[in-house]
Amino acid sequence: MHVQILIYDGFDELDAIGPYEILHGAGFDTELAGLEPVERITASHGTVLEPHATLAARPDLLLVPGGGWRDRKPVGTWAEYERGVIPAAIAERHRAGSRVGSVCTGAMLLAKGGILDGRPATTHWAAYDDLRGHGVDVRTDARVVDDGDVLTCGGVTSGLDLALHIVEAELGAEAAEFAARLLEHERRGQVFVSATTR
Amino acid sequence: MHVQILIYDGFDELDAIGPYEILHGAGFDTELAGLEPVERITASHGTVLEPHATLAARPDLLLVPGGGWRDRKPVGTWAEYERGVIPAAIAERHRAGSRVGSVCTGAMLLAKGGILDGRPATTHWAAYDDLRGHGVDVRTDARVVDDGDVLTCGGVTSGLDLALHIVEAELGAEAAEFAARLLEHERRGQVFVSATTR
Repeated sequence: MHVQILIYDGFDELDAIGPYEILHGAGFDTELAGLEPVERITASHGTVLEPHATLAARPDLLLVPGGGWRDRKPVGTWAEYERGVIPAAIAERHRAGSRVGSVCTGAMLLAKGGILDGRPATTHWAAYDDLRGHGVDVRTDARVVDDGDVLTCGGVTSGLDLALHIVEAELGAEAAEFAARLLEHERRGQVFVSATTR
Repeated sequence: MHVQILIYDGFDELDAIGPYEILHGAGFDTELAGLEPVERITASHGTVLEPHATLAARPDLLLVPGGGWRDRKPVGTWAEYERGVIPAAIAERHRAGSRVGSVCTGAMLLAKGGILDGRPATTHWAAYDDLRGHGVDVRTDARVVDDGDVLTCGGVTSGLDLALHIVEAELGAEAAEFAARLLEHERRGQVFVSATTR
């Protein structure tokens, strides 16, 4: 499975690095990818990273972190939502057949791309109303929402539980338990799996 | 408070980025620092970072991540333990008056530097015996150990709880609660505070 985690200036470092470490550790071909070829990308708290790759035409799984939404920061998820280039790129991969997921307010970029319309999804609590504004069935009771070709989760650390859900679905419960044990992470919260996915 | 998180090739990205995001978010002057001036440092799962700074002579708090100990990886904590340069640099900062802390198997670098002798501390479960071999009072019942000038915690995600403990000690319970809520993280596990620290 080829996984790309899309990073952009102002993304929240933990939103991306949590799932990255778990999915890489589970043996998937996992990359931190920029939209364009750039030398470095600066996260919302100032971590400076060199992306591994640029966004592929059709990764098996594309994960999108959030960052800076709540404060409407001039660089980050809010800015990318307004600019629209990343939402369009996400929608394009979804149409091409990529499974698409988000961590935290990364969901707003999926919503702007039109791929959450009328679907169950979740996001950071600070963006519940914004996500509802896109006609999304916001599952505030769930930490992870698996709607088949679209996966979403709550704020920041819920990305760990999303990644472990993916590991469990792909490699089995034992692999997910082992990964959680290595991280000394106790999985928690509800995973909502839509009826069509079950 | 000037916080430096020491990064080196093979460090576990989450060990460092979890506390970094929390401590930076709480308003401390927080840097990812290399021992020497280098352009980039590659973490244990392949994340490539550009350090913000080199290690200062006496940061107020120096945090050391682990990474690659369990598998005796040729690059990472095991290699740095064997090489001894980082353990000596940590001991030097401790002697100069820095508060020193570790996440996960970073504790082995503190132990090698001789600053955990006879003291309560913890580490990742995979290194309990190795840490005991240094005459450390390993607190397997604790997720975070606060022994005043030395702070340690368990594996990977326990770094979040260590950082929140620091935020609580410095800025109060409300600040720590807010930080946890932003991360959608539920603090858990015991914090062992030594009698001389209380």
